[in-house]
Amino acid sequence: MNEFELIARLSKSLPTNANVLTGAGDDCAVLDIGLPDQWLLFKTDALVEGVHFTKDASPEKIGHKALARCLSDIAAMAGTPNAAVVTIALPEKFDIAFVEGIYEGMNRLARKLGVAIVGGETTTNPERVLISIALLGFAPRGKAVLRSGAKTGDAIFVTGELGGSPAGKHLEFEPRLAEARWLAENFSIHAMIDLSDGLAGDLRHILNASQAGAELLRTAIPISRAAKVRAKEPSLKAKPAFVAALTDGEDFELLFTVAGADAVKLLDAWKTHFPKLKLSCIGKIVGNTGITIRDKNGTQPLAANGYIHFA
Amino acid sequence: MNEFELIARLSKSLPTNANVLTGAGDDCAVLDIGLPDQWLLFKTDALVEGVHFTKDASPEKIGHKALARCLSDIAAMAGTPNAAVVTIALPEKFDIAFVEGIYEGMNRLARKLGVAIVGGETTTNPERVLISIALLGFAPRGKAVLRSGAKTGDAIFVTGELGGSPAGKHLEFEPRLAEARWLAENFSIHAMIDLSDGLAGDLRHILNASQAGAELLRTAIPISRAAKVRAKEPSLKAKPAFVAALTDGEDFELLFTVAGADAVKLLDAWKTHFPKLKLSCIGKIVGNTGITIRDKNGTQPLAANGYIHFA
Repeated sequence: MNEFELIARLSKSLPTNANVLTGAGDDCAVLDIGLPDQWLLFKTDALVEGVHFTKDASPEKIGHKALARCLSDIAAMAGTPNAAVVTIALPEKFDIAFVEGIYEGMNRLARKLGVAIVGGETTTNPERVLISIALLGFAPRGKAVLRSGAKTGDAIFVTGELGGSPAGKHLEFEPRLAEARWLAENFSIHAMIDLSDGLAGDLRHILNASQAGAELLRTAIPISRAAKVRAKEPSLKAKPAFVAALTDGEDFELLFTVAGADAVKLLDAWKTHFPKLKLSCIGKIVGNTGITIRDKNGTQPLAANGYIHFA
Repeated sequence: MNEFELIARLSKSLPTNANVLTGAGDDCAVLDIGLPDQWLLFKTDALVEGVHFTKDASPEKIGHKALARCLSDIAAMAGTPNAAVVTIALPEKFDIAFVEGIYEGMNRLARKLGVAIVGGETTTNPERVLISIALLGFAPRGKAVLRSGAKTGDAIFVTGELGGSPAGKHLEFEPRLAEARWLAENFSIHAMIDLSDGLAGDLRHILNASQAGAELLRTAIPISRAAKVRAKEPSLKAKPAFVAALTDGEDFELLFTVAGADAVKLLDAWKTHFPKLKLSCIGKIVGNTGITIRDKNGTQPLAANGYIHFA
């Protein structure tokens, strides 16, 4: 049983209440707690030594990543993060400077974004460091962007360049909060997700939630320099760059859909507002399910279903 | 460095923002997010296999305990819990029935209390199961009970009976939510905490936050039957029952203070509303710092400072 099968099984019978608009299964939960103009977003995410970072990673980057992963989920709903609580589980003998480094990385990112860290739990995990963060945020009432709104004919967009994250980006990425809010304020974004599992896997999450399919244009998919460099280095035995862009995971870019009629206007406005961050239209939503890729030889179904990580 | 020293060090420089009324250092964080009648409470807590439960514990009880610990912190602020997110970290080979059992225990307790479980993260922790839960709740605006309000002359109360929790109560306790709300609605509760570290340790948390001392009456401290039975069983090499009541930890009862003038009225009203749950007046808040215990031989300072667990 992989991560997604387990989650699907456990999600079936979770308790709910009158405040819950969207429970488990999207990037964040969405709660209506009676704020006149806002919905509350609620999310948790965890990092484990040896799974999400190596023992020799910089503690500041580990802390940055731990918080940034949650922030990226708030971005995926076009939300604004507000407050976090942190569980950190440590071996009994730990290096205090290492733990302080983790907090420095978290605190720096939190401070930059106005996020308060309002509580923590320290506990013992004898074999390895584990960090679990829960994050609260807000979205304008009625405006949280879910995974489920993609419609036939939508254009599919992705920010940045994909693949090669294991080379370093996975520890240093900047969650696309400002970009996501700008998108939701200026366009009708039908569906959005942040890329944690890889384009192929995360696009499937949108398609499953929206009961739709997608056709991607192979040449339009933006491949990162890191993925290309890794592909050329025989000692790494890395994936071909295109496969890396589809399946490496931990890109933490935004994947979203808008009505086809909005696509050109959006691309133009984006270039003015975010000249340094690439935005690519990589395909369209189609009525039939599944993902196909079009190249000069025609279309073929996408077999690779992304990085299925139990992690 | 123990748990409390580490937390003190990390807590010094945490980022905050305009919504934070009480950050790290109380039972829950208290946020003012603009709700007209309510404050938001936010809390995280974790359970680790081999630290907080043994491998052979019932999964339903593990799930119950994981959520109940957070609920007990909401109770300590006289709050009402609303929604939780759950991180569960599992060895790569896990028993699906065991994981479902954990969720059953959590779900049953959540459902009973109207708490929604709105998201989760499953991840890998190769050597042992770890569960981290973050919980949101509400307290009436201006009415969350902090640790910091104890005043000289206050009577100190504790619910239930203390000690012996390792014999079983630690996996089965009921968080004192209804009792705490009733207390805050009907009396001016000056300070409150839930007993997780043991009476001696948790009373010190109140005293440190309130800059006060306490005098306890030895014969008034309610000792559980489990603590007495364990003390008499030579094979357990357990603590004397009185020491167990002070230091075993994981009682998850309420410890609180009210003005001395309210003490008798409170005890009388309690007996009517909660006839099945013992309430004991165990001493008073005094101006000087530290804890003393009075018995027939006079008063002596309390050396044992509770169960200092890095856990």
